[in-house]
This record gives sequence, C-alpha cells and structure tokens, in this order.
Amino acid sequence: MCELLGMSANVPTDIVFSFTGLVERGGVTGPHSDGWGITFYDGKGCRSFRDHLPSCQSEVAKLVKNYPIKSKAVISHIRQANRGGVSLENTHPFGRELWGSNWTYAHNGQLSDYEQAITTERFIPIGQTDSELAFCWLLEKMAQQFPTQPTDSRLLFDFLLQQCDFLRTFGVFNMLLSNGEFVFAYCTNNLTWITRRAPFGKAKLIDTDVVIDFQQETTPFDVVTVIATKPLTNDEAWQKMTTGAMVMFCEGELEFSHQGELMVD
Amino acid sequence: MCELLGMSANVPTDIVFSFTGLVERGGVTGPHSDGWGITFYDGKGCRSFRDHLPSCQSEVAKLVKNYPIKSKAVISHIRQANRGGVSLENTHPFGRELWGSNWTYAHNGQLSDYEQAITTERFIPIGQTDSELAFCWLLEKMAQQFPTQPTDSRLLFDFLLQQCDFLRTFGVFNMLLSNGEFVFAYCTNNLTWITRRAPFGKAKLIDTDVVIDFQQETTPFDVVTVIATKPLTNDEAWQKMTTGAMVMFCEGELEFSHQGELMVD
Repeated sequence: MCELLGMSANVPTDIVFSFTGLVERGGVTGPHSDGWGITFYDGKGCRSFRDHLPSCQSEVAKLVKNYPIKSKAVISHIRQANRGGVSLENTHPFGRELWGSNWTYAHNGQLSDYEQAITTERFIPIGQTDSELAFCWLLEKMAQQFPTQPTDSRLLFDFLLQQCDFLRTFGVFNMLLSNGEFVFAYCTNNLTWITRRAPFGKAKLIDTDVVIDFQQETTPFDVVTVIATKPLTNDEAWQKMTTGAMVMFCEGELEFSHQGELMVD
Repeated sequence: MCELLGMSANVPTDIVFSFTGLVERGGVTGPHSDGWGITFYDGKGCRSFRDHLPSCQSEVAKLVKNYPIKSKAVISHIRQANRGGVSLENTHPFGRELWGSNWTYAHNGQLSDYEQAITTERFIPIGQTDSELAFCWLLEKMAQQFPTQPTDSRLLFDFLLQQCDFLRTFGVFNMLLSNGEFVFAYCTNNLTWITRRAPFGKAKLIDTDVVIDFQQETTPFDVVTVIATKPLTNDEAWQKMTTGAMVMFCEGELEFSHQGELMVD
C-alpha cells in the first residue's frame, strides 16, 4: 500500500507542512520506502519531482522540503511497491497530456484479474504497475467520451465516477487526479480531507514533532484543502471518505461530491 | 533564440560539467534568461527539472549542479522567448508518451506562417510556443506512420528526417529528441557535437572558468557524446552540423547520420 497527498487552494500555497509529515511515512513512521513523487501545478504547466529512493533519505525530497514551491494544485505519493519493481518509471504520480492539459494521477491500492478488462490503445503504460494502466485506461475512456474537455465539469465528474466504480470492482482503488484546475479524489477504503479557511488555527503533525500556526501563513481569504490517505494532524477534524465516494475540489472549495456507502472501520 | 544541450552515453554519466557551462549562458555570458529545463532518463523513466527563472538565478538549477544525476540520455534547454510568454508550460524540454515510451524534445529557432500546415488532433500543445506545436506534430506523424515503435530504427530515422526537413521550410528548426534509448539531433544552422572516449583528456569550459580532467571521471570503456548549440569547450574538436543534417546516437555512439548541405558560416 501507499500513501496519497493532494492539495487544492485558491491562492498559491506551499505544501511543505503536509509533505513533511508524509515523507516521515516513507521509511520512518511508515513502511512506504519504495519511492515517492510530487507534482506541483503552476498555471497549465507543472513540475514533478520523483525518486525511487525512500522519501526520508532522498536528496530531492530535502529540496522540496527546504525550497517551498507555491502551487494551487498538488498531487503527491509515497510508495510501498506491490505490482511493478522499484524504478523511476513505476514511481507515482503519473502524467499524460489530454485535451491540451497536463493530467496528473496517483493511486493507492491494488487491482487483480484486470488484464482482460483494462486495456488501452492510445495511452500506453511506460512502467509495469496496475496503477499506471488504470490511469491510461481512465484517460482513454475520457478521450473517447469527450473529444474536448466538457465545459460543464459536472459531466466529467459523473463520467469519472462511473469509471472509478468500474475500476473498484478489481480491487482497492483510492486515487487522486488533477488537471491543475480540478482535484478529484475517489475512495475505496482510505482517503480523508480537510478544508482550512479563516479563522485559521494551529495544527500539529502526527508523524513528526512539527507545529504550524496557519494564521501566520495565510490571509483571511485563503481556502486550502488537503486530501490524504490518513489524517496528517491529530488536532483537526478530517472528513473520512466512504467506499465509492468521490469529491472534486476547485480553488480549494468542494465543487461536487458523491456519497459512497457507509463503511465500518 | 535558445541553447540546446543533449547527451548520449553508454554508462550513466553526469552532465554537471556541460550543464555548468550552459547555465552561464542563461543570463551571464548569454541572454537566454527566460527559463531553462533538463530531462534525465533513468531506464524508461525520466526526471525533468524546469524553471521559468533565469538558469543562473534558479534554485533548482543549483540543485542540478550540486547533486549530479547520472544518466545515459539527457536533453536540456535554456530559453530566450520569442513565441509564447515566459511561463512553465512554455519551458522546454517538452515531454509526451508515445509507444509506451517517454519522448523528450527541445527546439532552438523560430517558425513562421505554419498555422495552416502544422495542426494536430491527438497531441495537443499545453503552452503557446511554435516549438511545442512542432513536437506534437512530429509525434502525431510518428504515431500515424508506425502503430508501434519500428524495430528497425533506421526506418524511424529516415521518417523523422523527412518530417524535420518539412518543418525547416517554416524557419529555423534545430532540435533534440530522445526516448531514452536514442538521441536524435536535427540542424538548421546551430548544432555541434563531440564524442569523448579513451584516451580521455582535459577540457576547459568557454563560459566559465572550470576545467575538468575526464580521465579522472571515466573508465576506458566509456563513450559519451555531447550535443550543443555552440561548442562548450575551446580545446576540443567539436563537429559542426550543416543545414539539414541529422544524427542519431545510441549508447554514446553515432548510429545513423545524414549529411546536410554545406553551410557557409
């Protein structure tokens, strides 16, 4: 299993605080030591940093922690390999262009017996993971359904929900997907999110001894949503998603949500 | 105009020496201050670092200089904007997946009156540059011609040469293209290359006061080719490419070459 981290914000925001908690899980407080990656959007462009070294040992992860890159949309992932070896091409997040936008995706979970049902022709996996194949398949379905990006993003949300429900029939499919404008999250069993807005308070990371006072870092107009596999702080109210639930954030705000089934912990 | 830098090698090799010379041209010895980027292959995966800050001021460029990433194929670019604003999505190298491989491309030059002739449907530009459009068009032609990557890479070389000759009818088209295995270079007016192999000697950068003794950095079996807009050292014999010339390197060795027209300097 792996850990996911995503962010959607209405102002360029640095994710150093949350990322600091996440990298601890890459070999210190968690076993996710088979690589990590993070993609920051800047307008339609994006920057990706990826390493197949454990995030807690990675020089590039140190750069990301020490050199805050501000962004309105971020997707990050730390990996504990199940399908596909430990290599750069198997390291999330994965990216492809569709409709003239960079799409970025990361997956937590594992799919089984999908080889007959999940095939692609246009978007071909570069690595060997079930995760990247599912991403390619999603993009292929999106491209087939919509020749250009639908102006009504509800159509895209509903279509993605159907496709994710299908992928979930093959196993555990928790995922984050973004085009820089929207951040989608689909849950099978492990995803939580929190929206921070004024009045901002303090929060303490669960995985390492760091406290942040968001009041010092923000303006009263900032809206910042963080999505993670498990809560990163223990003094805030994270929303736990249910099985089959999907959400879409834009500029930090929840735009669309689909309630999943009630799940017993 | 911009500056290109490429490398093909038979062993993972760091490009810090050449990159150090190139970044000086990004605002110190050269006017190319509108961003820079570099892509390093690692197997089928690749790492890209891009910044729209001048390379001589960029924190990320400092990381790349100080933290040598070894690779067998590298594409790099520093930019002086002509078409398309200074932004991350307009920053080379550009990347797309085709045939299950990461393709990376950078362009030096400028095209004119191409809007009717150079159009794409499948690979859509994310930014606003003529360069990225030409890349998308090349990939679209490659995908139309070959449903999968041809096993005879001569077929690909000859096909790419035809397409590049066509693009050159719209202006200056110097470009580097790689899938991690091959590094292609096409010249309109400014490309040079050098293959270094045993016995290795010393070389001094033109743009900054750095000398390297390649003997200290290599084994007798290393073969490393560097391609650049202009020679980066002044005490080695760089091969100047002619108009319409194309070369393809694999594992540092020249595999195919097409002689262009003789060009008067």
